[in-house]
Amino acid sequence: MSSYSAPLADLRFALYDVLGVEALFSRLGHAEASRDIVDAVLEEAARFAGTVLAPLNGVGDEIGCAFDKATHEVTTPPGFKQAYEQFVEGGWTGLTAAPELGGQGLPHTLGIPLNEMVNAANLAWGNFPLLSHGAVEALKQHGEAWQQEVFLKPLIEGRWTGTMCLTEPHCGTDLGLLKTRAEPNADGSYAITGTKIFITAGEHDLTDNIVHLVLAKLPDAPPGAKGISLFVTPKFKVGRDGAVGERNALHCGSIEHKMGIKGSVTCVMNFDGAQGWLVGQPHKGLQAMFTMMNTARLGVGLQGIGLSERAYQNALRYARERLQSRSLAGARFPDKPADPIVVQPDVRRMLLTIKSLTEGSRLLALHAATLIDVAHRSQDPAERERADTLVSFLTPISKACQTEWAIENTYHALQCFGGHGYIREHGMEQLARDARITTLYEGTTGIQALDLMGRKTASTQAAGLKLFLAEVEEFARACEGDAALAEFIKPLRDKASEWAMLTRDVLERAAKDPEEIGAASYDYLFYSGYVVLAYWWARSVAAANASAHDEGFKRAKLETARFYYARILPRTLTHAANIRAGAKPLMALDEALFG
Amino acid sequence: MSSYSAPLADLRFALYDVLGVEALFSRLGHAEASRDIVDAVLEEAARFAGTVLAPLNGVGDEIGCAFDKATHEVTTPPGFKQAYEQFVEGGWTGLTAAPELGGQGLPHTLGIPLNEMVNAANLAWGNFPLLSHGAVEALKQHGEAWQQEVFLKPLIEGRWTGTMCLTEPHCGTDLGLLKTRAEPNADGSYAITGTKIFITAGEHDLTDNIVHLVLAKLPDAPPGAKGISLFVTPKFKVGRDGAVGERNALHCGSIEHKMGIKGSVTCVMNFDGAQGWLVGQPHKGLQAMFTMMNTARLGVGLQGIGLSERAYQNALRYARERLQSRSLAGARFPDKPADPIVVQPDVRRMLLTIKSLTEGSRLLALHAATLIDVAHRSQDPAERERADTLVSFLTPISKACQTEWAIENTYHALQCFGGHGYIREHGMEQLARDARITTLYEGTTGIQALDLMGRKTASTQAAGLKLFLAEVEEFARACEGDAALAEFIKPLRDKASEWAMLTRDVLERAAKDPEEIGAASYDYLFYSGYVVLAYWWARSVAAANASAHDEGFKRAKLETARFYYARILPRTLTHAANIRAGAKPLMALDEALFG
Repeated sequence: MSSYSAPLADLRFALYDVLGVEALFSRLGHAEASRDIVDAVLEEAARFAGTVLAPLNGVGDEIGCAFDKATHEVTTPPGFKQAYEQFVEGGWTGLTAAPELGGQGLPHTLGIPLNEMVNAANLAWGNFPLLSHGAVEALKQHGEAWQQEVFLKPLIEGRWTGTMCLTEPHCGTDLGLLKTRAEPNADGSYAITGTKIFITAGEHDLTDNIVHLVLAKLPDAPPGAKGISLFVTPKFKVGRDGAVGERNALHCGSIEHKMGIKGSVTCVMNFDGAQGWLVGQPHKGLQAMFTMMNTARLGVGLQGIGLSERAYQNALRYARERLQSRSLAGARFPDKPADPIVVQPDVRRMLLTIKSLTEGSRLLALHAATLIDVAHRSQDPAERERADTLVSFLTPISKACQTEWAIENTYHALQCFGGHGYIREHGMEQLARDARITTLYEGTTGIQALDLMGRKTASTQAAGLKLFLAEVEEFARACEGDAALAEFIKPLRDKASEWAMLTRDVLERAAKDPEEIGAASYDYLFYSGYVVLAYWWARSVAAANASAHDEGFKRAKLETARFYYARILPRTLTHAANIRAGAKPLMALDEALFG
Repeated sequence: MSSYSAPLADLRFALYDVLGVEALFSRLGHAEASRDIVDAVLEEAARFAGTVLAPLNGVGDEIGCAFDKATHEVTTPPGFKQAYEQFVEGGWTGLTAAPELGGQGLPHTLGIPLNEMVNAANLAWGNFPLLSHGAVEALKQHGEAWQQEVFLKPLIEGRWTGTMCLTEPHCGTDLGLLKTRAEPNADGSYAITGTKIFITAGEHDLTDNIVHLVLAKLPDAPPGAKGISLFVTPKFKVGRDGAVGERNALHCGSIEHKMGIKGSVTCVMNFDGAQGWLVGQPHKGLQAMFTMMNTARLGVGLQGIGLSERAYQNALRYARERLQSRSLAGARFPDKPADPIVVQPDVRRMLLTIKSLTEGSRLLALHAATLIDVAHRSQDPAERERADTLVSFLTPISKACQTEWAIENTYHALQCFGGHGYIREHGMEQLARDARITTLYEGTTGIQALDLMGRKTASTQAAGLKLFLAEVEEFARACEGDAALAEFIKPLRDKASEWAMLTRDVLERAAKDPEEIGAASYDYLFYSGYVVLAYWWARSVAAANASAHDEGFKRAKLETARFYYARILPRTLTHAANIRAGAKPLMALDEALFG
């Protein structure tokens, strides 16, 4: 089985040395989030993830969730319920929620290391609490006062969990096609009828109640995406007074047999006139859904980082232990029967690829989280708006890149094990199977790419990009006198200005042919992701040099950054060429001639 | 479940129009391999693969092989044995073997479409007959007359199957470390003792006997790889007269639980003083092993093509059926509730990537096969040697690229299905899991890359590359007057000369630092693969234009070639940059500082 130990040193480096969260938290009025407290949270989360969740990862995969056709009930894998109880008792579900709602009131940013660790330790388990956050956000921003009163506290305290019921058999990306309907009841509630699929944690035995947030159409709904409303529809009915009543008319019809995340349950949910309450305005459900979606997307991005980190730790251990052949430069360990494979350049290529993508991603994700804290709590409206624009821009990059890199990283890590990686007992193939969901759910990579290129760039005159590039340039200017950073600053500036040029180029072409947006989107997203990481690697070197870390730590950051610039950043060459190639090579062949 | 129908039109195009096999077979004295016969073989193979093997693919994955601890016997999934019997009755096991050995004497090249189809239809099943070919080649080239007499016919007729017993728990790539020993018996045979792992088809219920080719060390063996000998060690003893005797002292100790190819059995094999016969010279087993390996490597490359083809067919079908959203350029099918996703540029990117890599790979593999026919049967010793050098050079490219592309292609195909791709019932996740073994067994991608860069390039002064480049240049010159090909010939020539330059560059650097070989190898291999496919795409357009195919066929080849040159070939930009970056970024960080 694969092992996991939380990367506390790198998380602390990212938070304190690179992102300077001590000063930030203090400026945002989070006096309670002192370094002592943050350290204690990190250590306790690491302990919980490493000792409670990680040992259940293989069991969850092996045994999976069980569905009882007669009772429509789902039993989670052995140990999952006990772990969930400990998670709730530890106050982890409300770590960053407001104290008046039962939370601990810590900065949103601190939820990120927690989630990375949970996902690394046990991705499937992590899906049970994951979607509660989206439900909380949707209710907080769009729910009526009584709905907030009744639902938020149990969700935040983890006594109930939440779901997002969006997808139907014939519609995933295109929610305008959905068929679930909501008929008004006499008491002001609605009767929800329809079938939803792919509902993560739609039914389980961890909590007494499950709060489904369901998209459905009102009788007078205009056609398409503009006719969708959101309803809060609990498994057990909840009165306006918070009293839990009888079983609602909804049930799990079946569960999916999946490639991975077998400890997580994916349900078909049948709503048979279930009582639901409208959340927000009629026909404005899509807006509330995006609230949930953005939260969930950043969360799935963290799943990517967690998997990558765990993959790295195990691949590195194996590469150090596995003796096979000699270094081409001559025996490195002549006293052993062979050298460990970590001396081989191609094994190092794989390890350093994982390491540089994962540590870089960690900063991308944590930076996005600090922006959310700023957007929520800054005193300056302009700063709040800037942070909001920037995090919107970074969300699809974070989700898509971190999950695609997780697939790449779990691939490399498995490959380091050779044939042993393909065998279940080593646990590496589970990481690869688990990772495979992350580029699909909460919007495929293609959808993230369209979100970035269309909604977040073309529709905003590249507002987010401009903010990010300004931050890069500010950093580059600040480093101008620093000889140790020169090797990074020049290529970073070159890439930043190429990024701006490519953006202009696509938007100009798109003005004539809208297909140019879709044709460029995938490569544009990855081009963006690699430049974002180049920025974080340059900043990591700068921060390490300025820190009190030992020479080994500094050297590891420096050489990993050099590797990144020499061996990963050149991927932008291909992406840039593909962006420039435009839509024609994709669109010229009639689909009837595809095969 | 995923479906499969053999791509007969493209196979015929590759064989007849691009590679001109009719003239080649006739020149090599294969008078029997007329177009009528070849067509009949292709159609019958397509029928067998599509109707007998393909329906068992899901069953094999679902039920897998069963191991009985008490009897050490393995039961294959339902239907596998019956399918194998039909395969044997149809004469498929000996399709390309010599008639005097019970074969049908057809050109080796014709085995390639057969194997592609078998692998596409049922990869796990295909592993049972696969390794017999390697055993046959090893015995034909290195076995004593009586061994050939006794073993070849049953193997070729499929009454017995063969294995390659190389790997041990502590040694895979580095066979010099192996511990299995061979002690001489009084009758001239040897007593083989040791444990082998990862033995594909090491035990099963398809045939009466199983012929293990086992690497072991003689008592006087020099240390390391120069002390390895090869032994033929059947499950049931076989006398010099061919009489099958008692059970040999070897058995399957357990079977592996794998990520995929669950219908295929992967055995731990225990040899407890089993009777084995030396094949070839003492201590020269590695040479015989390479004979088996090269055959097996090209075979695994075909597994990659088969999986890619099946992935493509299903992704294309789904992309044409799945209605979701509208084309960004406006509704393409306004009468439907939404457009099929095949109109989306990013879905086309994925589909055309699979299509261009798969059709290109088919030519790479078939070309290598024609070279084997030439090497075996040409009257001209210089032509034979040239063909042998070239196929040696192309083997690691074919194996590694076709399998890595299979992983990429099954990834894209699954992604086209969105969340549905992750669910077992659609069969796409099985393709992805099955594909994952192909970059591991018969030498990982890293090992193929070292083989190409070291043994096949550095050690031969790039003999294979020079032959390939000469072929490219000959083609380019022949096309000089052809305006329709100009758009391909110029970039092809540019890439060919860059390839030569990069090769010189690496070899120069490697003269000073041997790590440069390993550091460049992976990117050099893929750079090579993409240029090889660029050559085949240019030749495909030329061949299509010159053919009697309809306009639709020609247009599909032309636009797919354009896609390949615009959107895939630019991957060489990244690979070239990585090759130029050299070993330093990989080797600078001490392994103690990796994490």
